[in-house]
Amino acid sequence: MILLVSPKDVAEAHEAIEGGADIIDVKNPPEGSLGANFPWVIKETREATPEGMLVSAAIGDVPYKPGTVTLAALGAAISGADYIKVGLYGTRSYQEALDVMKNVTKAVKDSGENKIVVAAGYADAYRVGGVDPLIIPRVARDAGCDVAMLDTAVKDGKTLFDHMSIELLKEFVEETHKYGMKCALAGSIKIEEIPMLKEINCDIVGVRGAACTKGDRNEGRIQKDLVKEIVKVCRQ
Amino acid sequence: MILLVSPKDVAEAHEAIEGGADIIDVKNPPEGSLGANFPWVIKETREATPEGMLVSAAIGDVPYKPGTVTLAALGAAISGADYIKVGLYGTRSYQEALDVMKNVTKAVKDSGENKIVVAAGYADAYRVGGVDPLIIPRVARDAGCDVAMLDTAVKDGKTLFDHMSIELLKEFVEETHKYGMKCALAGSIKIEEIPMLKEINCDIVGVRGAACTKGDRNEGRIQKDLVKEIVKVCRQ
Amino acid sequence: MILLVSPKDVAEAHEAIEGGADIIDVKNPPEGSLGANFPWVIKETREATPEGMLVSAAIGDVPYKPGTVTLAALGAAISGADYIKVGLYGTRSYQEALDVMKNVTKAVKDSGENKIVVAAGYADAYRVGGVDPLIIPRVARDAGCDVAMLDTAVKDGKTLFDHMSIELLKEFVEETHKYGMKCALAGSIKIEEIPMLKEINCDIVGVRGAACTKGDRNEGRIQKDLVKEIVKVCRQ
Amino acid sequence: MILLVSPKDVAEAHEAIEGGADIIDVKNPPEGSLGANFPWVIKETREATPEGMLVSAAIGDVPYKPGTVTLAALGAAISGADYIKVGLYGTRSYQEALDVMKNVTKAVKDSGENKIVVAAGYADAYRVGGVDPLIIPRVARDAGCDVAMLDTAVKDGKTLFDHMSIELLKEFVEETHKYGMKCALAGSIKIEEIPMLKEINCDIVGVRGAACTKGDRNEGRIQKDLVKEIVKVCRQ
Amino acid sequence: MILLVSPKDVAEAHEAIEGGADIIDVKNPPEGSLGANFPWVIKETREATPEGMLVSAAIGDVPYKPGTVTLAALGAAISGADYIKVGLYGTRSYQEALDVMKNVTKAVKDSGENKIVVAAGYADAYRVGGVDPLIIPRVARDAGCDVAMLDTAVKDGKTLFDHMSIELLKEFVEETHKYGMKCALAGSIKIEEIPMLKEINCDIVGVRGAACTKGDRNEGRIQKDLVKEIVKVCRQ
Amino acid sequence: MILLVSPKDVAEAHEAIEGGADIIDVKNPPEGSLGANFPWVIKETREATPEGMLVSAAIGDVPYKPGTVTLAALGAAISGADYIKVGLYGTRSYQEALDVMKNVTKAVKDSGENKIVVAAGYADAYRVGGVDPLIIPRVARDAGCDVAMLDTAVKDGKTLFDHMSIELLKEFVEETHKYGMKCALAGSIKIEEIPMLKEINCDIVGVRGAACTKGDRNEGRIQKDLVKEIVKVCRQ
Repeated sequence: MILLVSPKDVAEAHEAIEGGADIIDVKNPPEGSLGANFPWVIKETREATPEGMLVSAAIGDVPYKPGTVTLAALGAAISGADYIKVGLYGTRSYQEALDVMKNVTKAVKDSGENKIVVAAGYADAYRVGGVDPLIIPRVARDAGCDVAMLDTAVKDGKTLFDHMSIELLKEFVEETHKYGMKCALAGSIKIEEIPMLKEINCDIVGVRGAACTKGDRNEGRIQKDLVKEIVKVCRQ
Repeated sequence: MILLVSPKDVAEAHEAIEGGADIIDVKNPPEGSLGANFPWVIKETREATPEGMLVSAAIGDVPYKPGTVTLAALGAAISGADYIKVGLYGTRSYQEALDVMKNVTKAVKDSGENKIVVAAGYADAYRVGGVDPLIIPRVARDAGCDVAMLDTAVKDGKTLFDHMSIELLKEFVEETHKYGMKCALAGSIKIEEIPMLKEINCDIVGVRGAACTKGDRNEGRIQKDLVKEIVKVCRQ
Repeated sequence: MILLVSPKDVAEAHEAIEGGADIIDVKNPPEGSLGANFPWVIKETREATPEGMLVSAAIGDVPYKPGTVTLAALGAAISGADYIKVGLYGTRSYQEALDVMKNVTKAVKDSGENKIVVAAGYADAYRVGGVDPLIIPRVARDAGCDVAMLDTAVKDGKTLFDHMSIELLKEFVEETHKYGMKCALAGSIKIEEIPMLKEINCDIVGVRGAACTKGDRNEGRIQKDLVKEIVKVCRQ
Repeated sequence: MILLVSPKDVAEAHEAIEGGADIIDVKNPPEGSLGANFPWVIKETREATPEGMLVSAAIGDVPYKPGTVTLAALGAAISGADYIKVGLYGTRSYQEALDVMKNVTKAVKDSGENKIVVAAGYADAYRVGGVDPLIIPRVARDAGCDVAMLDTAVKDGKTLFDHMSIELLKEFVEETHKYGMKCALAGSIKIEEIPMLKEINCDIVGVRGAACTKGDRNEGRIQKDLVKEIVKVCRQ
Repeated sequence: MILLVSPKDVAEAHEAIEGGADIIDVKNPPEGSLGANFPWVIKETREATPEGMLVSAAIGDVPYKPGTVTLAALGAAISGADYIKVGLYGTRSYQEALDVMKNVTKAVKDSGENKIVVAAGYADAYRVGGVDPLIIPRVARDAGCDVAMLDTAVKDGKTLFDHMSIELLKEFVEETHKYGMKCALAGSIKIEEIPMLKEINCDIVGVRGAACTKGDRNEGRIQKDLVKEIVKVCRQ
Repeated sequence: MILLVSPKDVAEAHEAIEGGADIIDVKNPPEGSLGANFPWVIKETREATPEGMLVSAAIGDVPYKPGTVTLAALGAAISGADYIKVGLYGTRSYQEALDVMKNVTKAVKDSGENKIVVAAGYADAYRVGGVDPLIIPRVARDAGCDVAMLDTAVKDGKTLFDHMSIELLKEFVEETHKYGMKCALAGSIKIEEIPMLKEINCDIVGVRGAACTKGDRNEGRIQKDLVKEIVKVCRQ
């Protein structure tokens, strides 16, 4: 299982890199769970990250506006992101989600054939009216994405596991693998929960709080040693 | 006064070009009044348009998500648009609108210093909760944009003039000029209304229906001869 | 493939019975797509229907209130329904839908072990905020239901096929069969569309308009001959 | 004045029975103020309660769906409830409330002519859009119910007396009696407020918190001695 | 039974006066069913009306803002209205309605002790969330008003009788009389329905359409002869 | 710069008067930021205030109902207010705001030509959907008002300065002066912020908390000495 870490500035990015994270993730939390950051921030992060490591960029908790979202995905790819995450927030059905992801995939792949497209759903989508998390694998499959992902939409202390049982998550991973894609899971995951994700064959785990001092995503800061520890758990 | 025409396909774009339009505008009406089209459509239009003529691209009736919108603006610029129009739809105040436009301007100007940024408001913003049209000039000024524009949000047969008196429009143009910017006006404008806009010193007028057979934006098609006629009115 | 027909009164029920329908369905359209009818109507219909034929009863486009809905399911079963259909309308997620269906199943099976429980989703659930239709098979499986069903929530002339492609429907049927359940499909289906459903191995098709004079569910009336014709198509 | 007590499990029910409560009430608070419990819970409570004592069951804070609600009322009656309480929550007018209650009354009386039907309104109905509490007596009268009741819809610490003056409650009781029905009042009533209800000739008072240790409906548990004390006050 | 007529201009007022109407009513339909007109319109109407005849003024489909509404009631009284009608639109309960009407009554009576205060409810209040029409008599009684009135809130062709049965209306009149007040009824009433209102002892009937050419409140105009005819029916 | 103080009772009004306030302001906070008080309260305050000093009255956070609002403005003027403040809360655009203010101005000026009309906007209008604060000067100008004012709509601890930068406020004052009107600013302003307002040439500052013990608008009371201190700052 590989590790995606979401730093909030370049200093934290360096800690994550030195700690051995596999993917450095750029997002903009005030703009939403998968809020987009600005082109210059993506660019800076790409420049600060060793060539062999991937940089991921969220492009927003997106509305059902395929045109706008596709332009944003292209903007992120051009700015240096290797891994484009789209939060399917305002898309209410398989059809709407597919409509967005098909176009995003076309634009991102046109801009660089090795770029990776991630269709991200929310485990608590029912709280915001987004597309059901359990159909993300099918959306991703039919849109030609590389990764099906889950996160949480509302950051109120509830985690991925509060909204989805381990059985459902296991089925999610299996379905994603059956379609030939990778699976990423995130959502306030704690270090002691990581083995569970490994157990169900999750490919990528995303963290922030778990890599921060005191496990606190807001007040704490990412620390190299904590990242190392998590990497160790992921690799076991 | 120069003329912006919004064709819906390449054949129509050629009519607009041959008719002498100054700006060829790419949008995606099913996605909203200033709905964004896809990168490949912008690119195709840029390729179909003579070098000296400008291509404009709307990037959406945008939400208050500065990160996502800035990435989309960059995506449009990179795809070949010279003139980036942002519909300030989900931004409810001067502050929110400024927050979006400042970042868009930075990203677009970074991508090409001659690119033109247009802050577009809606004459009927009160029907959708968007920022008031009368403060667009100040938003544009403080964000460093090049053009302040008005259009209509709801396409229900009402035109720009149904929502704004000519006195208010005149004040809009004067304020925009005072701040050293250009002014663009659109919103189901008919050919016989164009002299009024010229009279109040509007710089750019945007049309579609007026350049179509039978004046019908949906059923009609853009015709070279009609474009020529409008150009003539604009130049008088 | 067997045929479920929804008459609106006893005279129509007799036409459906004589026409050879397999299941006589009681619902109350003014109360919603899967609106519940009153106990005495279910009882009358059961009495009018030959013993070997099944009577189905919808218990509503239900809210997320497991207690109330479970009591209603019991009320329908006690009134003589063999086949209890629950419209998962106000349940927004797998978890909420499961919570309702598990309790309904327990109550219905306690009241008669041969009673059949149907978890019904809406192909256009995104228009009303209900649980996604594509996860109905999993809800039904985990709640111990017998049948996974789809219908449409909004009766505005759009049909099942306007909201779901035949590929998605096929996958729906296959998934349902994989879990060992039967599959029912409905939603303004026309006679000429029935072979398509047969082709994808649907088990039960539900109709009303197709069995009415002029194909009109509101103005027309169910006719024995039309029912016979549909039965023939189902049996081919 | 007789006493209705709402235990949350069988152990508490025994305390209420031994304390001398007149009616043992089954509800399901997580599902709403008058949330319905499951058929097996009603059945168990009926079995645990001496034959001469009544068991009451709430069937929900119900929507305006006469069919579904009538089936649920029948389900509760069949499960052993003597006293069926319907919370008129989603019914917005006299007409809608009557439409629900007339059908419920028919179904319940058909299932057992001694069953008692209670039309329950909310003193704070204006907070949830339900039918006005002051017209409940007329709804109950015209639907053929036995009891007109008031409770509170939102459990935020406010009580019946915060929403209705004693003069209005007195008028409520008098009107109910004039129509030949009984009157029940509930809503976080404290033991010291019971004499006031007796004074205005209320027939049935409903409590939970007042019969719990420390007067705490959530953390406390119903105690035989407290029930006895309340019974004494009711009988004085 | 006396007759209130609502003209839309002074010419129509003269027709109503000459036709023998008892009360000349000033309202402003574009502002709502009981929309308020401007002080100068009330004043003009008062000046155009013979001294012995009453002028009525609606002060709006009012929000729950006792201060603003009380100032408006005073403004109408000062402008010459003898009869102040308050549409209890944004008040959701007995308590809120009473809060408005008590203050209005105090202000109006302070301004002239013969002024008449009318508490007006809407027969279709459930469509707009206003206080239930059946409790208007109690609100009026407890606030010290002179008249309890009903009208309709939404002017969509439905009349008073579509929302209230004659039995309920009769009970409304009787309750109002029992409290020593007068009762007024309006709501697209047709001339042939007036005897029914007389039959149930209504004191005041309000019309507009019935006094217009072709019975059309919008396209028609009030005619002396039609008013005379209605007066005749009222006096029989 | 002159000082407007908002006491909550007559005792506080006396403190404000003795402290040297220029305008004594009557409002009714439970009814909203610019909530209206009753005619008798305005009258009492006018009687308690020396002849040479002005009394101001807010007439509400008003809806878009020009008729009702105009009657209320007249009611306040007649009750003794010299200075009529209208909170443009439910008016969503320049046009709607103008529609209200033009009529209010006509009615108030008709009632006394020295009466002063204040068009008040909210710095945080975007939180409640009201007209944008930056266009208030134009509304006031075109409606013939005397003063353009800003306050805050939501009293959650945020102040005028949290919603508007000093640059925007300065532009607001300058624009108002350019149109020949006075400018008033309020919104939880602290004593130490007053010099800033003086600096930008504001004409009238409105306070309550700053004149109360402990600076607390709710728990504190207005004190003569604090008022004196603020007056001193205003006069410097």
